[in-house]
Amino acid sequence: MDLTPEDLQVERLGACRIDSPVKGVQFVAERDQVVLSPVPEDIRRQIETFGAPLAFEKAGPRGRIYFDPSKLKCGIVTCGGLCPGLNDVIRAVVLSLYHNYGVKTVFGFPYGYEGLSYRYGHVPVELTPAAVSRIHEYGGTVLGSSRGHQDVEEMVDTLDRMNVGILFTVGGDGTLRGAQAIAGEIRRRGLKIAVVGIPKTIDNDISYVERSFGFETAVSRAVGVIDAAHSEAKGARNGVGLVKLMGRESGFIAVFATLARSDVNFCLIPEVPFGLEALFRALEERLAQSGHAVIVVAEGAGQELTGVSGERDASGNVKLMDIGPFLRDRILEHFRGRGLEINLKYIDPSYAIRGVPANPHDSAFCLLLGQNAVHAGLAGYTNLVVGYWLRTFTLVPIPLAVSERKKVDPDSWVWSSVLTSTGQPREMR
Amino acid sequence: MDLTPEDLQVERLGACRIDSPVKGVQFVAERDQVVLSPVPEDIRRQIETFGAPLAFEKAGPRGRIYFDPSKLKCGIVTCGGLCPGLNDVIRAVVLSLYHNYGVKTVFGFPYGYEGLSYRYGHVPVELTPAAVSRIHEYGGTVLGSSRGHQDVEEMVDTLDRMNVGILFTVGGDGTLRGAQAIAGEIRRRGLKIAVVGIPKTIDNDISYVERSFGFETAVSRAVGVIDAAHSEAKGARNGVGLVKLMGRESGFIAVFATLARSDVNFCLIPEVPFGLEALFRALEERLAQSGHAVIVVAEGAGQELTGVSGERDASGNVKLMDIGPFLRDRILEHFRGRGLEINLKYIDPSYAIRGVPANPHDSAFCLLLGQNAVHAGLAGYTNLVVGYWLRTFTLVPIPLAVSERKKVDPDSWVWSSVLTSTGQPREMR
Amino acid sequence: MDLTPEDLQVERLGACRIDSPVKGVQFVAERDQVVLSPVPEDIRRQIETFGAPLAFEKAGPRGRIYFDPSKLKCGIVTCGGLCPGLNDVIRAVVLSLYHNYGVKTVFGFPYGYEGLSYRYGHVPVELTPAAVSRIHEYGGTVLGSSRGHQDVEEMVDTLDRMNVGILFTVGGDGTLRGAQAIAGEIRRRGLKIAVVGIPKTIDNDISYVERSFGFETAVSRAVGVIDAAHSEAKGARNGVGLVKLMGRESGFIAVFATLARSDVNFCLIPEVPFGLEALFRALEERLAQSGHAVIVVAEGAGQELTGVSGERDASGNVKLMDIGPFLRDRILEHFRGRGLEINLKYIDPSYAIRGVPANPHDSAFCLLLGQNAVHAGLAGYTNLVVGYWLRTFTLVPIPLAVSERKKVDPDSWVWSSVLTSTGQPREMR
Amino acid sequence: MDLTPEDLQVERLGACRIDSPVKGVQFVAERDQVVLSPVPEDIRRQIETFGAPLAFEKAGPRGRIYFDPSKLKCGIVTCGGLCPGLNDVIRAVVLSLYHNYGVKTVFGFPYGYEGLSYRYGHVPVELTPAAVSRIHEYGGTVLGSSRGHQDVEEMVDTLDRMNVGILFTVGGDGTLRGAQAIAGEIRRRGLKIAVVGIPKTIDNDISYVERSFGFETAVSRAVGVIDAAHSEAKGARNGVGLVKLMGRESGFIAVFATLARSDVNFCLIPEVPFGLEALFRALEERLAQSGHAVIVVAEGAGQELTGVSGERDASGNVKLMDIGPFLRDRILEHFRGRGLEINLKYIDPSYAIRGVPANPHDSAFCLLLGQNAVHAGLAGYTNLVVGYWLRTFTLVPIPLAVSERKKVDPDSWVWSSVLTSTGQPREMR
Repeated sequence: MDLTPEDLQVERLGACRIDSPVKGVQFVAERDQVVLSPVPEDIRRQIETFGAPLAFEKAGPRGRIYFDPSKLKCGIVTCGGLCPGLNDVIRAVVLSLYHNYGVKTVFGFPYGYEGLSYRYGHVPVELTPAAVSRIHEYGGTVLGSSRGHQDVEEMVDTLDRMNVGILFTVGGDGTLRGAQAIAGEIRRRGLKIAVVGIPKTIDNDISYVERSFGFETAVSRAVGVIDAAHSEAKGARNGVGLVKLMGRESGFIAVFATLARSDVNFCLIPEVPFGLEALFRALEERLAQSGHAVIVVAEGAGQELTGVSGERDASGNVKLMDIGPFLRDRILEHFRGRGLEINLKYIDPSYAIRGVPANPHDSAFCLLLGQNAVHAGLAGYTNLVVGYWLRTFTLVPIPLAVSERKKVDPDSWVWSSVLTSTGQPREMR
Repeated sequence: MDLTPEDLQVERLGACRIDSPVKGVQFVAERDQVVLSPVPEDIRRQIETFGAPLAFEKAGPRGRIYFDPSKLKCGIVTCGGLCPGLNDVIRAVVLSLYHNYGVKTVFGFPYGYEGLSYRYGHVPVELTPAAVSRIHEYGGTVLGSSRGHQDVEEMVDTLDRMNVGILFTVGGDGTLRGAQAIAGEIRRRGLKIAVVGIPKTIDNDISYVERSFGFETAVSRAVGVIDAAHSEAKGARNGVGLVKLMGRESGFIAVFATLARSDVNFCLIPEVPFGLEALFRALEERLAQSGHAVIVVAEGAGQELTGVSGERDASGNVKLMDIGPFLRDRILEHFRGRGLEINLKYIDPSYAIRGVPANPHDSAFCLLLGQNAVHAGLAGYTNLVVGYWLRTFTLVPIPLAVSERKKVDPDSWVWSSVLTSTGQPREMR
Repeated sequence: MDLTPEDLQVERLGACRIDSPVKGVQFVAERDQVVLSPVPEDIRRQIETFGAPLAFEKAGPRGRIYFDPSKLKCGIVTCGGLCPGLNDVIRAVVLSLYHNYGVKTVFGFPYGYEGLSYRYGHVPVELTPAAVSRIHEYGGTVLGSSRGHQDVEEMVDTLDRMNVGILFTVGGDGTLRGAQAIAGEIRRRGLKIAVVGIPKTIDNDISYVERSFGFETAVSRAVGVIDAAHSEAKGARNGVGLVKLMGRESGFIAVFATLARSDVNFCLIPEVPFGLEALFRALEERLAQSGHAVIVVAEGAGQELTGVSGERDASGNVKLMDIGPFLRDRILEHFRGRGLEINLKYIDPSYAIRGVPANPHDSAFCLLLGQNAVHAGLAGYTNLVVGYWLRTFTLVPIPLAVSERKKVDPDSWVWSSVLTSTGQPREMR
Repeated sequence: MDLTPEDLQVERLGACRIDSPVKGVQFVAERDQVVLSPVPEDIRRQIETFGAPLAFEKAGPRGRIYFDPSKLKCGIVTCGGLCPGLNDVIRAVVLSLYHNYGVKTVFGFPYGYEGLSYRYGHVPVELTPAAVSRIHEYGGTVLGSSRGHQDVEEMVDTLDRMNVGILFTVGGDGTLRGAQAIAGEIRRRGLKIAVVGIPKTIDNDISYVERSFGFETAVSRAVGVIDAAHSEAKGARNGVGLVKLMGRESGFIAVFATLARSDVNFCLIPEVPFGLEALFRALEERLAQSGHAVIVVAEGAGQELTGVSGERDASGNVKLMDIGPFLRDRILEHFRGRGLEINLKYIDPSYAIRGVPANPHDSAFCLLLGQNAVHAGLAGYTNLVVGYWLRTFTLVPIPLAVSERKKVDPDSWVWSSVLTSTGQPREMR
């Protein structure tokens, strides 16, 4: 960790001069913070270096705010792939703006950043409390989404022209970099528009954000698929269930689905490279011993096993080799070569996991995220995301949030527990 | 319908001479029957031809039985692909044999018909009430399964050597033909062994059997996947959700999942051929009008669109072209050619639907199926399956059950309702 | 059965003179019927008596219709207690009227028959396809409901004044009697208004209707509660789980939930009276043998055990003694008296089962029910309910449908299977 | 907070002298700790007072351990009310002892502390990996449970006689006090037996433990019930849905279920007293405005509204007035008095929420809890519970864990969010 206090400093549009209309709550004081690390040793070192522990600013309602709610208009966009809870977040933002602050006008820009670019001709919709009241019961996003970059100047033109004071952007890494660019252009033009990000990553891999919405729902769904794969594996002689799960660069979904179902025998993630021969050996042993096996592989795992193209998709993500069919074919080939008959069933649930409604735990989390995004925006914070850290909602500068991916640490207790639970070898090289 | 009364006649090992130990139930009388057709016009015609309406024999406990339960040993095998409810059926058979008739010895032969062939060296397990008491809570089959034919003489040797009086076989078309062959060999040898089939077909396509277990559970699961596809389709500009469902020769799962979720705009099944150009035209119209579309395709649909190999798998089923990726690629190609950008998301839930536990409605049905299979076996019926017809459990000769596949009738009200619900053109040629 | 052909005759407003606008379907011919009984012996007797088997008229689209769709206005009310699928039915009626027949105006009358009585001042809402498109995802009824009778003349005044041609009433016994009264008043006044009932009974107890919507969803929910009760019972020494389920006069929910979960040891229903002493004896035996027990009791069971008040609720139903707490207290008292410590846990899920969305199997069924109600209404049928019989949708005269309750037959195979599955004594007197 | 470092000090049997057999993991160092508070200001104050921040010891595998696994026998008991995840915990303890440390003998003592008292004659069962492999799929506890105290000397006699080295106790407040007493008696006798608690509280109210297993599953189930109540409320004129949820002294379940479903209009918890008149006034307003209302009440709420008996149950918990029926009757009475007709539906899901299997997120948590309990026990820690704090598993002295209940803080952001979400008045007095 070579962070400095400046890295944790959140940008603000200006001083708060208006009394908050929010009623009946304890306001967050200016000095409310939460430390970056809960380990005493880290804290000691930080105090030595910086005079104080590194800490995030706390999210929450402020007693004095920056925008005059009676004149404020807001906008919201959802970008990138679907994730359970998108509609919950939209709804929470709209309801909190309306009920807590009395903000009446909230525009929903359709299809992500496309909705801010006039060249597409998308028409913004007005989001009223009545319009959003039951949308959390549906999967997907009522606003639609899109991938890819749009012209920053054009987007800021739109915000300026429509007199938007706060833009809420719900999206992942690429979306947040876009939000950062928008905030930069706003700064250059000297406009008074706040940009507040709500981090969306079904893979739970945004830095300095402990938990992201939709992740738990995705794990639950993944577990259902693993159960089916386990049934298939046990249902045949030398049955092998192979399940591909999400996780381009971080294997959190694969890891937590594995911990939730100790029926998994091999958990393969991007953070822990493996060799095919070692995997085959371990798989042979497992089959010899138990007659069946379940393998979970994150989509970004094993990319080093093959020459990758380096191509990128519209969001700028590197195109991955499809590890699922690759592994399936190599395993079948291997066992055919050895004259061993196996029954491999491959399941790729893909989009079936992304488009479902959030489960109750995620729903409650989305509600709180949305409310805190509103509080942050009204207080004039900008170029930030609402985070969650050591069970507190926090304000995180976008540059810090997109600085690197959060990853599964192969030396952590969580990976140890995976090894313990699966029984797979620590090294498969 | 050119059936004769003989086609509905169930085979029996011999006369019933033993009083049934089953207590507290109304026994089925010898003459209890249920008509083949509920349409008065059909009945009139049958009476003219045969002197009586065509009718199945009713299933249920008989007051006098063929086997002496105190000496009886039974066996059970599960064959073919997984289907929700397999464990429920195993459990029902074991519990009914034990509690209703006092039969203590039930062998579970592992891995389908392989378990009856000594060349595999599989060891039968004894299935006690305690061993099966909670297995219905798991997906899959605790006995394991396999596809493909085994040597009939070898299998009958095993039954004879182990002194098995009734063999229960749970499986589909291929399995039932196997059971028929076993029953034939038993007849040739003059053995007193009954062969009772419990029809298993997740596609619900066994003839003269109105309902097969696991079908409803599969439809429920399919609906969850369609919901996710609908979210994906609505979440993008010109979003298209494409879902492949089971249904090799009959589209019942696709049809009922479509009726349960009127979000489906195109339902493609094997029974209703379609042309690609007509589909593309209709899809373009739908997108122009609504901006998104959901397509459900049964795996056996559209096979005429391409030269098929004619290869067969171990169960003797013709290998199908994989219609899902085929359609996906053709649709993408078409719209690329037309310069129209679409966002297609393809979902193939595959095995994720087969390996789950039965839902309560299926569970209750499995219980009754298993009990009635036991009643039929004890009464000395053989070479039959337990069916369900006009809300009654029936006895159906295997030759009749495997005579042809039950299919969705394009002239039926059910397909009309699909057309009404989807809005798709009646003819897409 | 002492029915005559007249009892099965459906009333009609008049001859059909307009060509149906429904496209692409096989129309139902005038003579299409389905027999009342699938038993050959019954049919023989009916032919002897009446010259033909007793049969229902088939539901489905007619080639010629009675109402001119371009001028038709329709209304819909939902009455009585909640039942899963109400919104599915509303939606199916609206969509079928619009898409199949081009009927543009459908009024939803709020809060049941109250919505037809001007004294309440409820304002009808217009139900458009857009307004109903996703309501099937919610439990309850978007129209609201109420119990009790309203002034028939006032209701017919409303229909006449608003120029309603078809009134669809979704409700149970009381509601159907109300619909019958409305149809009578319409006949007296010589109006051209059809009244089409869609039978709603979570207890599945309407006569001559094989299956009613919501029942399966209710059974599934009930099973979840039984599972929890089973856990409680096994989790304590002499644990007793006691679950009260719906079923005022018919025990179908209790019966099918019991069949779906063979963990139930006693299933108590209104159709099979029992004595407390006999129950206690059997319960003692069960506890002595297994250490725990699960009891399921339908709300209408055991009413003979106590003096009932004879009071009636707003719908005219007799007020029942609350059997759940009664049984709980008596069982506790009994075992206390015997010095035996037991751990009884009582669960009354009550409304938690009624207000949930329909499961996919029920959803599909609601769609078909709604479509067939629309076909029947357009063809000028009145004073009828849409039924389901021998796997066909049928038209059933309301007087026949409300003539008596469908009940669990203690001599049927289904009750035998309950006895087999629970192991409870056939007689507990 | 007036804690001292001593309060956070965990007791140990003695020095670790044996090399751990656990393979492939990062061991926890002796100095690994996690701070009590993540707030910099708190930390500064603690450093001033104690020279270091207050901190828990980290859980996790140690490189050197206290017990010789090859000779170790362990025992496990589950006590108190059911909670989702009990079987997951049992399973995790058994599998971790076996696979990580090679411990072969684990006794399951039946029915809680009763199983340790010879006077009941319960026979301990041996828990093998095979025996526990699928128990996590069931609700309840395979060991059974009981409430109440047992003779401490007798229980220690049993442990001593059976040569048990580590006793794992899964239970709540009362159970942990029992464990503390057992650990005290062991200390007095100078025995080498570790007592490791795994905190069980469906209400999530154990101090210094951030999250307890089963809580999220319970919230999910509660949400399903609230949805049904919402349907009932909307389905009738002036419909009121009243749901009683668990929460004797802490309203966390009610709070999080409310946040997950913003359909709740009043959330009543033990920590926030309310007056009936104020509630009635607010309810009248809500009905006047929206025509329906949903009220969630925790079982311990509103106890001050009535004289309580002060009686205690077998576990020593004060017997509560049943707030559900009390509120129901008072509300009905009030509106009857005012001549306003309302439709109140009361749901008490009670045991239906406790006896279900854990959801995947809880399952994974139980696995990790169980593993960490094993690590703690093997390292010779005693008189402690395994906690979870600032996303790390920790070791917490039992006296600290039972020192007071964790409660919902009416000044916290979480309660503010409830007020925001429900719209209920901050003060209802």
